[in-house]
Amino acid sequence: MKIIIVGATGTMGKYLTGAFEKEHEIIRIASKGGDIQADITSTESIESMFRQVGPFDALISTAGPTYVGPWKKMTDREFRKGIDGKLMGQVNLVLIGQHYINPKGSFTLITGALTDEPQLNFANASAANGAVEGFVRAAAIELENGIRINAVSPTVIEDSPQYFPFFPGEIPTTMQQLEYGFRKSVFGAHTGQVIKTY
Amino acid sequence: MKIIIVGATGTMGKYLTGAFEKEHEIIRIASKGGDIQADITSTESIESMFRQVGPFDALISTAGPTYVGPWKKMTDREFRKGIDGKLMGQVNLVLIGQHYINPKGSFTLITGALTDEPQLNFANASAANGAVEGFVRAAAIELENGIRINAVSPTVIEDSPQYFPFFPGEIPTTMQQLEYGFRKSVFGAHTGQVIKTY
Ligand SMILES: NC(=O)c1ccc[n+]([C@@H]2O[C@H](COP(=O)([O-])OP(=O)(O)OC[C@H]3O[C@@H](n4cnc5c(N)ncnc54)[C@H](OP(=O)(O)O)[C@@H]3O)[C@@H](O)[C@H]2O)c1
Ligand SMILES: NC(=O)c1ccc[n+]([C@@H]2O[C@H](COP(=O)([O-])OP(=O)(O)OC[C@H]3O[C@@H](n4cnc5c(N)ncnc54)[C@H](OP(=O)(O)O)[C@@H]3O)[C@@H](O)[C@H]2O)c1
Repeated sequence: MKIIIVGATGTMGKYLTGAFEKEHEIIRIASKGGDIQADITSTESIESMFRQVGPFDALISTAGPTYVGPWKKMTDREFRKGIDGKLMGQVNLVLIGQHYINPKGSFTLITGALTDEPQLNFANASAANGAVEGFVRAAAIELENGIRINAVSPTVIEDSPQYFPFFPGEIPTTMQQLEYGFRKSVFGAHTGQVIKTY
Repeated sequence: MKIIIVGATGTMGKYLTGAFEKEHEIIRIASKGGDIQADITSTESIESMFRQVGPFDALISTAGPTYVGPWKKMTDREFRKGIDGKLMGQVNLVLIGQHYINPKGSFTLITGALTDEPQLNFANASAANGAVEGFVRAAAIELENGIRINAVSPTVIEDSPQYFPFFPGEIPTTMQQLEYGFRKSVFGAHTGQVIKTY
């Protein structure tokens, strides 16, 4: 399979690249670094990426910038980080990518447990995640040619110990559980699902 | 109680105004008409509305514009209608309104069954609803002074028969069920809840 990983240079993306590159052709995307540079907050940049990559079988996104910070300082401006990033960035990967993906291909987007289990300072991610999950369920009944779409929703991940203090009592998702979530989406037959790793 | 209803001139808003105005002071808001005009897609307009209204006890929002239309024609541009409208419009009512609301006041936002039960042509509403529901759960743990926040999620409503063909087999929410959903949020003690009328 030819698999695009958007966010391939990040914590999740590096692990998933390592896990899948033995058996599949991986195209690594990030705004800096990677095989091809693309900024998911720009529809022109996304279009240009798909034109360069050509037809593909699966797209995995682990790119989802959000605003993390005190509620009291949050205004429209801060909130737009996750709206333009994790939400519209991923939505546009699908709205544009559907015209480039092979029949029976799949999209797998990233959300997270914050959708249902909020934590202080992370309201922007809760909202972006909720939107992506609603979008995935809706897109699944619209996409044609056997194209599937799912989201993977982990708790804080094992390789991000810097976040543990913000998630008291949350049992981290191991990197293997994370990989298996993406495996289920990419190589399984599900569509419209939020695959929780917890 | 002094209750702001944003979207007071619409199908839901008119019904809720009628139900609550016997016992409460209602301030009717819409972009055209109403007691005070405000456009929820503009943070300046929201600020100006709150300054004119002064301190209040509850805000009900039934204003949530979204894009309804064929998936194939949906691009970033169409999708932004629900993002700037139903999503950020309602988020900004809370981010700004928290500085004007009385202690122990409440915010009640509108979502809808499309969050979990998608229908063709309504992906934008599914995403906006999911975001508002994630936001409500997160805001509930951030708001201080006993301020509460919930969302009401109806199926297609009884007084909107023009939408019935788009929701095959969906049992409509009666106007009384809708009213009771808002009653539970405004006059109850819940916070961070999505109150489903179905
Ligand atoms: N880490 C966790 O514990 C955890 C748990 C649950 C959910 N999540 C979610 O999972 C996602 C990834 O997490 P992570 O820890 O792997 O993040 P990360 O280490 O910060 O990696 C993010 C990746 O996305 C890329 N990226 C960021 N903004 C981009 C943009 N505008 N356009 C294109 N690429 C962009 C980054 O590369 P460039 O900087 O070069 O663009 C990088 O490759 C986030 O959405 C996060 O909310 C994380
Ligand atoms: N109707 C249903 O069956 C149903 C079912 C589930 C969920 N919902 C959701 O419930 C919400 C309300 O539905 P409805 O049928 O009552 O809608 P509606 O009849 O179209 O009324 C919408 C109200 O919001 C106001 N409004 C629209 N855009 C605004 C803006 N930018 N700023 C300020 N006010 C604005 C409108 O007044 P102006 O035009 O003057 O601004 C009007 O008062 C929508 O979000 C819808 O998605 C509806």
